[in-house]
Amino acid sequence: MIKRKNELKVVTQKEFLGGKGTLQLTHFLEREDAYDSGRLFALSVLTPGSSIGYHTHTGDGETYFILKGRALVNDDGEEAVLEAGDVLITKNGSSHSIENIGDTDLEYIALILFDK
Amino acid sequence: MIKRKNELKVVTQKEFLGGKGTLQLTHFLEREDAYDSGRLFALSVLTPGSSIGYHTHTGDGETYFILKGRALVNDDGEEAVLEAGDVLITKNGSSHSIENIGDTDLEYIALILFDK
Repeated sequence: MIKRKNELKVVTQKEFLGGKGTLQLTHFLEREDAYDSGRLFALSVLTPGSSIGYHTHTGDGETYFILKGRALVNDDGEEAVLEAGDVLITKNGSSHSIENIGDTDLEYIALILFDK
Repeated sequence: MIKRKNELKVVTQKEFLGGKGTLQLTHFLEREDAYDSGRLFALSVLTPGSSIGYHTHTGDGETYFILKGRALVNDDGEEAVLEAGDVLITKNGSSHSIENIGDTDLEYIALILFDK
């Protein structure tokens, strides 16, 4: 089944999870196509200065793969700067936040899998 | 947990599943970090002219998200050309192949989830 770029579901969130600015999610998989394995597989875009607030994952884990831009992340209490090609894995029970500290859009792939 | 670009596991496959040329997989998640939900979450790179042969998914489904380049895919018997931003979903029991028909590397995200 092919989904063209312009057919994908795009959702815009403001100040997501206590963050700043705008998060745009382009969803690749609907829940029914994910075999109850997870709840998110998407391209995430944060505009410069935008962020997702610090939050804990309970019952699932999330992986980020940075495509473009410059991210300040908080990985379970420790800050780090991530760039294209870097990965952040937040396991069930762990916490994270992410902020675009660059001058261009921050783009990354996000995957959330349930810990059953 | 942060994995820097140069720490990720990179695997090179020749003529993968009956295809041509070279496939390079950069793995984001190890099996133990994926909660038994799937068996692949990776950046896939096919050099110009390289391909993955036509094969059927049994017990799992795979999603491709095209990042860069030009792909000829066979989606359960029907051919189509995909470009950046397009998605191919191959569900359990369906088949696919992918070939780089462009002049530059074809890069895409691949996710395989089990159908339990």
